[in-house]
Amino acid sequence: MIDIDEWTITSAALKAQAATPNPRLKAVMDSLVRHLHDFAREVQLTEAEWSCGIDFLTQVGKITDDKRQEFILLSDVLGLSTLVTAQCNRRPTGCTEATVFGPFYVPDAPEYRNGDDISNGASGEPCFVSGTVRGIDGERIAHASMDVWQSDDEGWYDVQRPELDHAQGRGHLSSLEDGRYHFRSIVAVPYAIPHDGPVGRMLEKLGRHPWRPAHLHFMIKAPGYETLITHVFRSGGSYLGSDAVFGVRSSLIADWKRHDPGVAPDGTRMDVPFYTLDYDFVLNNAPKD
Amino acid sequence: MIDIDEWTITSAALKAQAATPNPRLKAVMDSLVRHLHDFAREVQLTEAEWSCGIDFLTQVGKITDDKRQEFILLSDVLGLSTLVTAQCNRRPTGCTEATVFGPFYVPDAPEYRNGDDISNGASGEPCFVSGTVRGIDGERIAHASMDVWQSDDEGWYDVQRPELDHAQGRGHLSSLEDGRYHFRSIVAVPYAIPHDGPVGRMLEKLGRHPWRPAHLHFMIKAPGYETLITHVFRSGGSYLGSDAVFGVRSSLIADWKRHDPGVAPDGTRMDVPFYTLDYDFVLNNAPKD
Ligand SMILES: [Fe+2]
Ligand SMILES: [Fe+2]
Repeated sequence: MIDIDEWTITSAALKAQAATPNPRLKAVMDSLVRHLHDFAREVQLTEAEWSCGIDFLTQVGKITDDKRQEFILLSDVLGLSTLVTAQCNRRPTGCTEATVFGPFYVPDAPEYRNGDDISNGASGEPCFVSGTVRGIDGERIAHASMDVWQSDDEGWYDVQRPELDHAQGRGHLSSLEDGRYHFRSIVAVPYAIPHDGPVGRMLEKLGRHPWRPAHLHFMIKAPGYETLITHVFRSGGSYLGSDAVFGVRSSLIADWKRHDPGVAPDGTRMDVPFYTLDYDFVLNNAPKD
Repeated sequence: MIDIDEWTITSAALKAQAATPNPRLKAVMDSLVRHLHDFAREVQLTEAEWSCGIDFLTQVGKITDDKRQEFILLSDVLGLSTLVTAQCNRRPTGCTEATVFGPFYVPDAPEYRNGDDISNGASGEPCFVSGTVRGIDGERIAHASMDVWQSDDEGWYDVQRPELDHAQGRGHLSSLEDGRYHFRSIVAVPYAIPHDGPVGRMLEKLGRHPWRPAHLHFMIKAPGYETLITHVFRSGGSYLGSDAVFGVRSSLIADWKRHDPGVAPDGTRMDVPFYTLDYDFVLNNAPKD
């Protein structure tokens, strides 16, 4: 481990961690070291560029706190989150596809009953969402646990509004006996991911925009089934072809139907236009054993 | 950019940054994206492991501040710093080799004259350091700017001691008319890199120790010459073969000679044992134009 140069450093670093007790950790770290070194050699990374990289990560660390996760955002815009989600969620045809989790999920969202308005005061055009949760063999899944979260019509999630002391556009409900679910909320709109920090400045330097197409987030769990984390995307909207975090799947695109003032699906008399979205989810069976 | 999977995500991510205005930034980021994705696919990174990685980087960010740079430490222990230093400092035979900068350099160190004691009260056995700064053709370099920094005999740099309000074991001096330099300090000892944070916990999981062999840091600048950032390592000491940050080069190993009480090289009468280190530096010519 003496007289190391830019080539022999890789075997020296691998040798240093050769005694890693956990074989999986060793495999991951060996691959990480090899790829990190290959990258630095391939581009002939300079000391000034290395220093830029250190500064960048330091800034990402500085802006990250309980409310903001800039490292997840970085992983998202580099395509790493989508890659990991895809390779960990290969499912049989017919199952609803998974997509990226994103940084805006919050555990312990308020509990709602079917029919409730989960927008809870968030601004936006009214939207009535409904559908059925099924298993891969077509069976309807009762009491499936459903987390839903979305931004308001200015493109902000509740957690991004420091003045808010309660959840908006976010809730938990359960599917009914026949697998159906329905709730009221607001129409999803495109929004820009947080771009006032280092990741936003990076996107700008890469000639990229920070926008995501309009979508609604779901996390659906039921005993005996694989948990599904996904979005439903709004058809016809902007950025479907250039999602800043690479989350769009065509099977997840659905129609938000516009209706003139009148009677909503749940019987509410609406004196403004409103939208309906009907989307069914198909869960994969949990692995046996 | 719709229907991306774990394979097509790479070309989608590259396409997204295809309009990067700066060609060098594009080359670096393209390579980074490819190697990052290759790594995640090669090890079939799971969502739980990805999440561990996000947590780890978040912790590295949290502990990093003006006094502590855990991202540099991470780069150091992964061998990245040594790789970059090596590929950016290829020098003709005869020049003093460069090695890693490390996280403990502080600009604007106190000014000393040759002969002064730069330990400035740091604890340790007395050591008299001297040598000559030369150019590659043998010419002596007068007025070379020399930064020196080292730990005390408990293995701490001054910046790691919150109770200290002044520099210890750290100073700036200039070589004399004949290229000679000499100062008094304390003997360098092995020390552990900061390992009470996430990088320390990582080293432990990798079965690695956090120790560095005894060394003295130098940064030497002179007009017309390439800046040299290096260490001098103490021969015969521990960890020369397993430096936690891969910094040792055999050409940088030198003898710290022990002397019984008596007259030191600068004429000081020493009533305790003391050490001497004589080390010459050879700077490369700066690139023309
Ligand atoms: Fe979202
Ligand atoms: Fe050091």
